[in-house]
Amino acid sequence: MSIFNVELKKVVDDSYEIEAGFDLSDKLIKDLLGGLDGGLKKVAVITDDVVKPLYAAPILNKLIEAGYAAEMFSFPAGEKSKTREVKALIEDEMLEHEYRRDCFILAIGGGVVTDLSGFIAGTFGRGVPFINYATTLLAAADASVGGKTAVDTPRATNLIGMFNQPKKVYIDIACWKTLPYAQLSSGMAETIKHACFADREFFDYLDKNMEKIMAVDPEVCEHVAEVNCKIKYNVVMQDEREKGLREVLNLGHTVGRAIETLSDYRLLHGQAVSIGLIAQCALSVKMGYMTESEASAVTALLKKAGLPVAIPDYIDRDALVKKLYTDKKVRNGKLRFVIQKGIGDVVCFGEDVYATPVDEATAAEIIKNMQ
Amino acid sequence: MSIFNVELKKVVDDSYEIEAGFDLSDKLIKDLLGGLDGGLKKVAVITDDVVKPLYAAPILNKLIEAGYAAEMFSFPAGEKSKTREVKALIEDEMLEHEYRRDCFILAIGGGVVTDLSGFIAGTFGRGVPFINYATTLLAAADASVGGKTAVDTPRATNLIGMFNQPKKVYIDIACWKTLPYAQLSSGMAETIKHACFADREFFDYLDKNMEKIMAVDPEVCEHVAEVNCKIKYNVVMQDEREKGLREVLNLGHTVGRAIETLSDYRLLHGQAVSIGLIAQCALSVKMGYMTESEASAVTALLKKAGLPVAIPDYIDRDALVKKLYTDKKVRNGKLRFVIQKGIGDVVCFGEDVYATPVDEATAAEIIKNMQ
Repeated sequence: MSIFNVELKKVVDDSYEIEAGFDLSDKLIKDLLGGLDGGLKKVAVITDDVVKPLYAAPILNKLIEAGYAAEMFSFPAGEKSKTREVKALIEDEMLEHEYRRDCFILAIGGGVVTDLSGFIAGTFGRGVPFINYATTLLAAADASVGGKTAVDTPRATNLIGMFNQPKKVYIDIACWKTLPYAQLSSGMAETIKHACFADREFFDYLDKNMEKIMAVDPEVCEHVAEVNCKIKYNVVMQDEREKGLREVLNLGHTVGRAIETLSDYRLLHGQAVSIGLIAQCALSVKMGYMTESEASAVTALLKKAGLPVAIPDYIDRDALVKKLYTDKKVRNGKLRFVIQKGIGDVVCFGEDVYATPVDEATAAEIIKNMQ
Repeated sequence: MSIFNVELKKVVDDSYEIEAGFDLSDKLIKDLLGGLDGGLKKVAVITDDVVKPLYAAPILNKLIEAGYAAEMFSFPAGEKSKTREVKALIEDEMLEHEYRRDCFILAIGGGVVTDLSGFIAGTFGRGVPFINYATTLLAAADASVGGKTAVDTPRATNLIGMFNQPKKVYIDIACWKTLPYAQLSSGMAETIKHACFADREFFDYLDKNMEKIMAVDPEVCEHVAEVNCKIKYNVVMQDEREKGLREVLNLGHTVGRAIETLSDYRLLHGQAVSIGLIAQCALSVKMGYMTESEASAVTALLKKAGLPVAIPDYIDRDALVKKLYTDKKVRNGKLRFVIQKGIGDVVCFGEDVYATPVDEATAAEIIKNMQ
């Protein structure tokens, strides 16, 4: 018998910049030429068919003008495209177009595009660099910090994926102007979630400025984008691999994710999370961690952002309870929830424990009582 | 415009042990109970249908006896199973059986099993731990060190995957006794490759002991397993992400991989690498880095191990030349080869440069002159 020790201890630096502003495409090109490209001159621009003509095509042209060998790879917009099959199609198309390890990926779009592209980048040639150019509020709020990339499968959302950090993230607020109202609204759900678990002051700011946000006021939106990233960063920084604290980001997602899947993606992610937040508030009130009036304030803010606060009629309540078990927080067959503590904080259930077991009967009761 | 810095610098320790010996299943269970399981009690045993009854089933029983919630997930043996589709099938089966993030994967089998399982582990729930229990010489030589995991696609082998380190590797030499001759022989190709680029003394040892190896002499095989891991470790250690030095591991693989794909996997990986090594030796002789007699010594050793040294008739030479361009060493559309320097060394073409551009005409000539 022989034992051989493979020593693989090292310092890894995955640091990157998030830049928020108006019309950042020229800045992107300047950064790339200034060294962000890492010397790679082959670029795969990945986007969806809605963003393609609006933002990806002009950026592709600028890349080509700047001397890059750039090609566009797009797929139908929407969460339904966040699958292993679409990932494989893009990979095959890249391989067919002679893309190998000497390329980088530029993801232009919302959360689905950045999630999928980051995952493709992580496994293409065992990993090529990628840059996110976020065109939606949701991508700004949800997909810019944390390094989470994934696809959905018929059985669960986001359970196949990896942690992969971009080289840089651009949040182009100018793009928000072309977002359909439902999309902008959906993006606000994650922002409100952040305020709910981390920052009472930000919650009040959102409450005061919601109209300006929905009208894409430059100054207000830049502030929102920045606080969003900071809140998420503070969590992720302390717990990059979701061992404990990071579970707070899952606030509202236990019910939210399940509803999203059961709605067959008729509900946008943020819309589903909004309903999930309401369910979570009800649970928190029941457990004594929130007052009725605090819960109402959350509901009111979600409504102001144009988000749904009730479970759609077409969702079967029993099926929803069953679906909760596909949540990735499930441990030893028990449902676990993150619970809000008033507004701007979460309940800590022990060292590094931010999710608590909840009986199926209790979860079912909360769901049944929601309108 | 606002810029936010995401600081993600940290120390990562992916160190692990490789243990080589006879009949290691009891040791595995002991290690798991001793803490190797990381406190996780749910295990997915991944294997192929050949290894399943021989080794995986007995180990599964031992796991269950030891109190683990263990289930078996298997697929048809062979390189043809190393696909995104088989990966998805296993993932879906695991999800269906309520596997979530609170599990680890135990891969039992050869290189295909460990490559595929490591990739599945890397993306299941965005990463769960995995342990390799290598039952073949090829897995011992090729898949134990380096953290490379991948699947093949219709267009290229190993281009979709990731770097992912196991928690421990077991090399059970007892299993080699049940390997078909062609499999054992195929495994020797990577071992001979290691000797070719790194260790003249080991090359001579293999030459003297090839009969004992092929008869699975315990002492000799343990030595071979150990030196194999050491050679590969020395390379990987200095260059974990294949920026330069690690390309030496690709010796013989430029032609080898292409032949393997074109043979539609009628050739085992090692058999294809053997032919690739011969092509590379011819190139080295042509470039003046090897003598004819050194090249003959390599050919002789490969033959002793029962490996093919000629391109099969059913492989179209022109198609083979074209296929070379799917190699991941290709840069800016140019073929690149790693070149052996005598026996036990490789040519260094500059700082961190171990692959050199080769004209298509030269590659075609080498291939045409091979029998």
